[in-house]
Amino acid sequence: MSRPNLQIALDHNDLEHALADVFKVGEVVDILEVGTILCLQEGQKAIRCVRGMFPNKTVVADTKCADAGGTVAKNVADAGADFMTVICCATIPTMEAAKKEVKELQVELYGDWTYKQAEAWREIGIKQAIYHQSRDALLSGETWGEKDLSKVKKLIEMGFNVSVTGGLDVDTLKLFEGIDVYTFITGRGITAAEDPVKAAEAFKNEIIRIWGQ
Amino acid sequence: MSRPNLQIALDHNDLEHALADVFKVGEVVDILEVGTILCLQEGQKAIRCVRGMFPNKTVVADTKCADAGGTVAKNVADAGADFMTVICCATIPTMEAAKKEVKELQVELYGDWTYKQAEAWREIGIKQAIYHQSRDALLSGETWGEKDLSKVKKLIEMGFNVSVTGGLDVDTLKLFEGIDVYTFITGRGITAAEDPVKAAEAFKNEIIRIWGQ
Repeated sequence: MSRPNLQIALDHNDLEHALADVFKVGEVVDILEVGTILCLQEGQKAIRCVRGMFPNKTVVADTKCADAGGTVAKNVADAGADFMTVICCATIPTMEAAKKEVKELQVELYGDWTYKQAEAWREIGIKQAIYHQSRDALLSGETWGEKDLSKVKKLIEMGFNVSVTGGLDVDTLKLFEGIDVYTFITGRGITAAEDPVKAAEAFKNEIIRIWGQ
Repeated sequence: MSRPNLQIALDHNDLEHALADVFKVGEVVDILEVGTILCLQEGQKAIRCVRGMFPNKTVVADTKCADAGGTVAKNVADAGADFMTVICCATIPTMEAAKKEVKELQVELYGDWTYKQAEAWREIGIKQAIYHQSRDALLSGETWGEKDLSKVKKLIEMGFNVSVTGGLDVDTLKLFEGIDVYTFITGRGITAAEDPVKAAEAFKNEIIRIWGQ
């Protein structure tokens, strides 16, 4: 079982605040995500800035692409993204078109996806899935639980590298002990902290404590 | 039965080409859509430009929002959008959060949505749905047919204002004769034409021929 990555989601409303935060914590974390909100507010420029600042880090464009997969994927790859997200209800042709243009495609799991669909994603060679507690679901009172963990385990058994996100904090990580999580994704868990660098280091140290170096 | 609207989808890769096209045809059509590709490439600036050029037209931000509905909706409304799209696999809390911030929310139907979900959208007061032939599905050989038309009719019976999109051309419109379509959406049907103004007028004239003024 290898150490899970730590990914920061830059879910800011503007480039200025996003870059100020990633400037501080970019070297502490493993993967830099240009979040959906930032993509929609600032466009491809946000990806270009993050790629320019951190040429050696993995950059994710969280487009949650639902259609025109080939065009969207080519655009974010041109801007410097390594990974890109597609939404789980996108069609297989959309996913196939996107997959050709980026290094790796990540299926973002929302709502009523099925394991049958997940098998179809594996069949076309998709390696990554993102298990997501919706921010709005969390706001309306839902939380992490055994139901979530068993789905994460099942997806790992199916061969996915599974990223986990949504309302994570340092204390939540131990819930996943013994599970081969690929990446923990947090946005405000780092960026809304009084000291984002300390917050990022606390996440990283807890990951190392549980999963080793 | 009222005359369906004609909506142009600006699915360009850059603002320059999008604005050049909307400058020509903006007054001919009823609704101006800042497409997903353009949103992701240029950010909120694209919405602001279209709103600034056409202060009296209805503007749609085709974000296909899947999460953080409140933030995304507030951002596009601030930029000048009247309508915004959410993807059908978004959770109900996401849709509710988005609905509060924009004049009207449109659910974009992709993949395996169900009428049970559609009932839940109506229950929270969502009035609009977009029936979509995926561009990638069209590219892989799928076409409009009776299966699509019966779904459109059922959604209209459920009380939705239904927009229709995906590979439409002037000859396709008559397939919908007798159906109370809310809006026909086309992108390249207008923008890729040799003369975009003539193409927009041809769509509009065919709509008037079938549904009246």
